[in-house]
Amino acid sequence: MTSKAAILGASGYTGAELVRLIATHPGLEITALSGERKAGMEVAQVFPHLGHLDLPTLQRIEEIDLDGVDLVFCALPHATSQAVIRDLPTGLRIVDLSADFRLRDPNVYAQWYGKPHAAPELQAEAVYGLTEFYRDSIRTARLVAGTGCNAATGQYALRPLLEAGVIDPDRIIIDLKAGVSGAGRALKENLLHAELSEGTHAYAAGGTHRHLAEFDQEFSAVVGRPVQVQFTPHLTPMNRGILATVYVEGDPRAVHAALQSRYSEEPFLRVLPFGTLPSTRDVRGSNFAYLGVVGDRAPGRTVVVAALDNLTKGSSGQAVQNANLMLGLDETAGLMQAPVFP
Amino acid sequence: MTSKAAILGASGYTGAELVRLIATHPGLEITALSGERKAGMEVAQVFPHLGHLDLPTLQRIEEIDLDGVDLVFCALPHATSQAVIRDLPTGLRIVDLSADFRLRDPNVYAQWYGKPHAAPELQAEAVYGLTEFYRDSIRTARLVAGTGCNAATGQYALRPLLEAGVIDPDRIIIDLKAGVSGAGRALKENLLHAELSEGTHAYAAGGTHRHLAEFDQEFSAVVGRPVQVQFTPHLTPMNRGILATVYVEGDPRAVHAALQSRYSEEPFLRVLPFGTLPSTRDVRGSNFAYLGVVGDRAPGRTVVVAALDNLTKGSSGQAVQNANLMLGLDETAGLMQAPVFP
Amino acid sequence: MTSKAAILGASGYTGAELVRLIATHPGLEITALSGERKAGMEVAQVFPHLGHLDLPTLQRIEEIDLDGVDLVFCALPHATSQAVIRDLPTGLRIVDLSADFRLRDPNVYAQWYGKPHAAPELQAEAVYGLTEFYRDSIRTARLVAGTGCNAATGQYALRPLLEAGVIDPDRIIIDLKAGVSGAGRALKENLLHAELSEGTHAYAAGGTHRHLAEFDQEFSAVVGRPVQVQFTPHLTPMNRGILATVYVEGDPRAVHAALQSRYSEEPFLRVLPFGTLPSTRDVRGSNFAYLGVVGDRAPGRTVVVAALDNLTKGSSGQAVQNANLMLGLDETAGLMQAPVFP
Amino acid sequence: MTSKAAILGASGYTGAELVRLIATHPGLEITALSGERKAGMEVAQVFPHLGHLDLPTLQRIEEIDLDGVDLVFCALPHATSQAVIRDLPTGLRIVDLSADFRLRDPNVYAQWYGKPHAAPELQAEAVYGLTEFYRDSIRTARLVAGTGCNAATGQYALRPLLEAGVIDPDRIIIDLKAGVSGAGRALKENLLHAELSEGTHAYAAGGTHRHLAEFDQEFSAVVGRPVQVQFTPHLTPMNRGILATVYVEGDPRAVHAALQSRYSEEPFLRVLPFGTLPSTRDVRGSNFAYLGVVGDRAPGRTVVVAALDNLTKGSSGQAVQNANLMLGLDETAGLMQAPVFP
Repeated sequence: MTSKAAILGASGYTGAELVRLIATHPGLEITALSGERKAGMEVAQVFPHLGHLDLPTLQRIEEIDLDGVDLVFCALPHATSQAVIRDLPTGLRIVDLSADFRLRDPNVYAQWYGKPHAAPELQAEAVYGLTEFYRDSIRTARLVAGTGCNAATGQYALRPLLEAGVIDPDRIIIDLKAGVSGAGRALKENLLHAELSEGTHAYAAGGTHRHLAEFDQEFSAVVGRPVQVQFTPHLTPMNRGILATVYVEGDPRAVHAALQSRYSEEPFLRVLPFGTLPSTRDVRGSNFAYLGVVGDRAPGRTVVVAALDNLTKGSSGQAVQNANLMLGLDETAGLMQAPVFP
Repeated sequence: MTSKAAILGASGYTGAELVRLIATHPGLEITALSGERKAGMEVAQVFPHLGHLDLPTLQRIEEIDLDGVDLVFCALPHATSQAVIRDLPTGLRIVDLSADFRLRDPNVYAQWYGKPHAAPELQAEAVYGLTEFYRDSIRTARLVAGTGCNAATGQYALRPLLEAGVIDPDRIIIDLKAGVSGAGRALKENLLHAELSEGTHAYAAGGTHRHLAEFDQEFSAVVGRPVQVQFTPHLTPMNRGILATVYVEGDPRAVHAALQSRYSEEPFLRVLPFGTLPSTRDVRGSNFAYLGVVGDRAPGRTVVVAALDNLTKGSSGQAVQNANLMLGLDETAGLMQAPVFP
Repeated sequence: MTSKAAILGASGYTGAELVRLIATHPGLEITALSGERKAGMEVAQVFPHLGHLDLPTLQRIEEIDLDGVDLVFCALPHATSQAVIRDLPTGLRIVDLSADFRLRDPNVYAQWYGKPHAAPELQAEAVYGLTEFYRDSIRTARLVAGTGCNAATGQYALRPLLEAGVIDPDRIIIDLKAGVSGAGRALKENLLHAELSEGTHAYAAGGTHRHLAEFDQEFSAVVGRPVQVQFTPHLTPMNRGILATVYVEGDPRAVHAALQSRYSEEPFLRVLPFGTLPSTRDVRGSNFAYLGVVGDRAPGRTVVVAALDNLTKGSSGQAVQNANLMLGLDETAGLMQAPVFP
Repeated sequence: MTSKAAILGASGYTGAELVRLIATHPGLEITALSGERKAGMEVAQVFPHLGHLDLPTLQRIEEIDLDGVDLVFCALPHATSQAVIRDLPTGLRIVDLSADFRLRDPNVYAQWYGKPHAAPELQAEAVYGLTEFYRDSIRTARLVAGTGCNAATGQYALRPLLEAGVIDPDRIIIDLKAGVSGAGRALKENLLHAELSEGTHAYAAGGTHRHLAEFDQEFSAVVGRPVQVQFTPHLTPMNRGILATVYVEGDPRAVHAALQSRYSEEPFLRVLPFGTLPSTRDVRGSNFAYLGVVGDRAPGRTVVVAALDNLTKGSSGQAVQNANLMLGLDETAGLMQAPVFP
């Protein structure tokens, strides 16, 4: 039997990626799509690459009939999401792709996002959507908060190491290189082809990027005391992909073993042989994440490199994976498409 | 029941694309892979993006056990292919992705490729693999010759117009823009990132590109007399995709109607509304081809634009589509993945 | 002695390119810069790559002191330009980079741009800025109208052929591939990296692109009767560069000879040996334009390919070249920088 | 009076960049060019973008007449360079762009390059070519060894900090993102457009990149005891540019002040305002290097970002700058071209 899903915010990149993945999903069907500014348009007009699909017309959120819908994917902008979700029927299961429910503490939210949360009671209820580490809670959750794409990449590299105690939690640096689709379809000067092509640069450096709040929350929870990492994201001239180069202090072989051990049964996480490092091209368009480890010449210093596709494993693929769990479907359903290379 | 396939020449881009598509194909299974220079290696070493799959080790062709194999995909280099296929067991069904069996006339082959064909009797037997126009013959063929990727793009734009008699066959110009993956994984200076990025240019201009031989053969057969088009391919800084801008003389609405009429039942060919033109990004990574028509300000002049992914619909996707027909499977099996955008 | 120049509209790409070129120009000095929305900012804040230069602060146009200014470069948006130039002191010499003064006929302007011109008397006075064909008039002009970048590319390929009468004026097709910087720093969805990368597509097809008005005006003037070409521009994933593939009917050797003969003394136009075609990478960042000719297999059909950098020879370099003439400087002053490759 | 220069190895990217820069240099003239595999060809055939220049034909090295040559630029491959330079007339002044003379200690050379040096006596004589730190020695040197492009970038960020003692020398991490032209025109699979586009990845990680030998030599000399940094280079999908993100421990304001103080009089080094970070697009095609500093939220941790063009300031521009000093010319002659953006 096929479950019915609605997608709120289907006119952005993560919305389109949800449609792409669900298009060949054996157990999910799209019954409603919202897109505020594009309401009344067909998806094929907004995203010609989805023109072969038989999809509902884009509607305004209030026009959508949620009767019979099993699960809502909410791919709305940050801040909009919390108000919309607050007002959805309480019986509805929801996977939110925005930043709105990632942080459990209302004060921390207010600190990083600059204003109080509109639905703090839902903040407390929401389950953090990093599937491999919250699987059981996700299965029974009503509201799952998709992780930040950068935050997911860094956590895949680091959580097993912190859990296993093989690295120093106070000496972690995450240098991250991201493709441009993570910034969405927004009209910003730095996202123009003429600006980004040939223009690699850091942004939100110096401990100001909001995904740090996720790192802080999660790593502190794992270690059992406050942990703060150093994190510098960079924008690179590519569309999809995140490569996180993570500098840690700990034995390289122990680091590799901890990752291998933790992920050996995971369908989407692949630890490469020791000394082999991944590229963003290895995972493009797929729900896989690749991890590699190399030791530095300085004893006790190790580099972990993690690669994933920000729109898939970092966002919409993760959302489908979580929806699969929530709906009792095979966790990998609709997600085993191989990466697209070249 | 799952059919068993072998891929000869799995270490190139079209071979990798076959593996990618078959990975989620419900009715096909890969039982052997050859790669001459990479024999003994795992696919994951040659193509890390396929590392999540459980695949046979790469072998030399002569080491491959073809017992139980239902169909062979032959993704070998031009000229190599004909010698290998000549020596395969005659009971085996074959989809060849090279140029070796596209031309039916040995003399024409010798003229365009500069030497006699090694298996002229198979040339006569081979069925041209443009699925939508040779479907019935492909179903029963033993050997199907995959089309050139440029040749497929141009034919999708033009065959229905020539069939319907709505354009002048002697006044056709195909100006084609292609991504670099069509040139394969070969180490050539003009394929380097530093050369191609920011370096759009024509190549094989002036009626010298070998895909012209396919155009000549096919268009002449449709029209019933010799037809020669003008064709200029260009290399553009992208990985996948072909955009053919085709200049014809004929009524724009009649041209559009002819395409719509011919392709209305085709699962992979999509004719856009009159006046809307496709982009290569609309089809990337998929087996779809998009077609658009616009009339020029000069009465009786029309532009048809066709877009497809050279590695998928232009090569490996087409091969799987043909294999589906040959094996009695659903023609679209394994091929309904949506395009990857952005 | 150094001439003093002001640049109106210095916060766009053509404005920045003017600054770049004048930075090492031996006879020109920038004494004022306008940028409406960026008024009060330093150029280094708007264009960090110009941060090493000692430049005036950006001002609003009305704040600029034009005393002592010898020449104004006007790089304002279309439509804005005509109103600003109309109100400039009549003694001032002006090179306009917008579309506002390219068309001599007010009716034709109104037809293509959808509204009456604000300064029709200046339209009549303005000299068309295609240097190699209007050199003498430019020398003495008060107002020079820079050409469209696409229009320049097509004219370099075609004017000598029409002048020499070696091609059929009624059978010309210009298929043009352009980089994204020609569209300016505007915030439009199709200019985003995520949209353009891997997304070659035609735009303004079917005889609707405004540069056609320039082609019509100029080619008709050359031939002495109305001439209308067919023209399809495409956007390709690169920043700079235009490649025009021009299909003509005429003898290939005669075509090549006509180009060679016409351009043999031109400092910036380079006709490649017969059969050799240019790439956009050959001219990137420079004021050079390259032309190549190849004959088709069909007798009497010829392909001319022209390449130039839209921001340099297609716009700001052309503007400096014209300013050099107007100011009595060496025509090539400041413009002999070699292309940047790779 | 114009000095005469020969370029050995003019058929690679650094050779072409030398030609580009010298083309508009007021005090340098190219009188001979070598290119082993391209001997007998014109430069325009090997590098069409240099086709407007009147240049000597490419010759084999032994054919070159060095009479009257004031200075030789040696842009030959590593290992080849040392043998060629050893046999040049001892009166000739040489700027070498290879790695062959960067390391002063023959044992260190042998350790990093895997074989003994062919001209150890010249190793001792060679002056390290980081202009801003070896200016006086370069002026009088006979042989100057151009630095590695990565090594230059890292040193610009770090030397003033080590000199000023404002950071901990034992806690330095350099995470570097490089464009592909630094790898040269070599035919390697990972340099193909189809491989690199969308494929950011680390290489030579774990303390194995040869530029580490330069870091070790230079930083240890500055500090007066052995210093070893951690260094991970990455290849990103762009042609030109290096962005080094350098993690140090020290007060951010003190770090910024040390850079500002050290570089305030340097014509090509630009320290951005505190908190502003550079992009590779800010320096593309120019001899400028940009530096930015930001403090982390963790007190005492600082990020320095340095950007330069690997082919210009990182290699050929640096070489011309050094040649200017050696020949008694203005140090900035021929090098003040503004960056090319977009």
